[in-house]
Amino acid sequence: MTHITSLDHIAIATKNLTESLDFFEKKLGLICTHIEELPERGIRVAMIPIGDTRIELIEALREDSEVSSFLQKRGPGVHHLAFATENIDHDMKTLKNQNLNFTNDAAKPGAHGAQVGFIHPKSAGGLLVELCEHKQTENQ
Amino acid sequence: MTHITSLDHIAIATKNLTESLDFFEKKLGLICTHIEELPERGIRVAMIPIGDTRIELIEALREDSEVSSFLQKRGPGVHHLAFATENIDHDMKTLKNQNLNFTNDAAKPGAHGAQVGFIHPKSAGGLLVELCEHKQTENQ
Repeated sequence: MTHITSLDHIAIATKNLTESLDFFEKKLGLICTHIEELPERGIRVAMIPIGDTRIELIEALREDSEVSSFLQKRGPGVHHLAFATENIDHDMKTLKNQNLNFTNDAAKPGAHGAQVGFIHPKSAGGLLVELCEHKQTENQ
Repeated sequence: MTHITSLDHIAIATKNLTESLDFFEKKLGLICTHIEELPERGIRVAMIPIGDTRIELIEALREDSEVSSFLQKRGPGVHHLAFATENIDHDMKTLKNQNLNFTNDAAKPGAHGAQVGFIHPKSAGGLLVELCEHKQTENQ
């Protein structure tokens, strides 16, 4: 069993962050609270909280970014779902023991100082699923 | 401006509901509260609440169902995001006045007695986005 507590975020790959923000903010009336550029991952991310989860819009900053190949293959849409867990090391170990594959062997640093692991879509019915553990001292 | 209040659900198209449920329940530890067959739409749906939203796994019951062409074109994955609104008629009218296209002209009956409208992916950055209004007397 895992230590999953909530749906942390829904990551949506977009070809044009400005147009996507126009849709979610000006059309739907949701509010983007933060835009962050992550040059080392080649992406720009916009956070839109809704209820106890959030939408993350992800735009590629360069052609070898982690969402570029997704956009080329599948076009814009949901890139992954992320579940918050209270113990990512335990969950990765437990799920690996149940023959689930991860794209990273051990938890690695993600956005907001979280530790993250990605379950391979082949182990999750075609979905890319992230597990993330946030540090308790962090401002969520 | 719309009357959106929350993220109602995330609909995931799956080729095999049993395998998807195995992943979300036995592997991740989430709990499916309800499975519903909707023969008129050619689908079977499993509901998995998480926080104040829920995951809906959708399996096609026949080849002309609404998720069959999605599965053929894109494979399994997120089919649409649904936002709950307090006034779908108002929202559809407002968004149409801003040149957004809907796949249905007026709100129509959806699951759980809700009234639903679907914003065309071309108007929503490639995503299929549902608006849904639940009746207040309904048990959510």
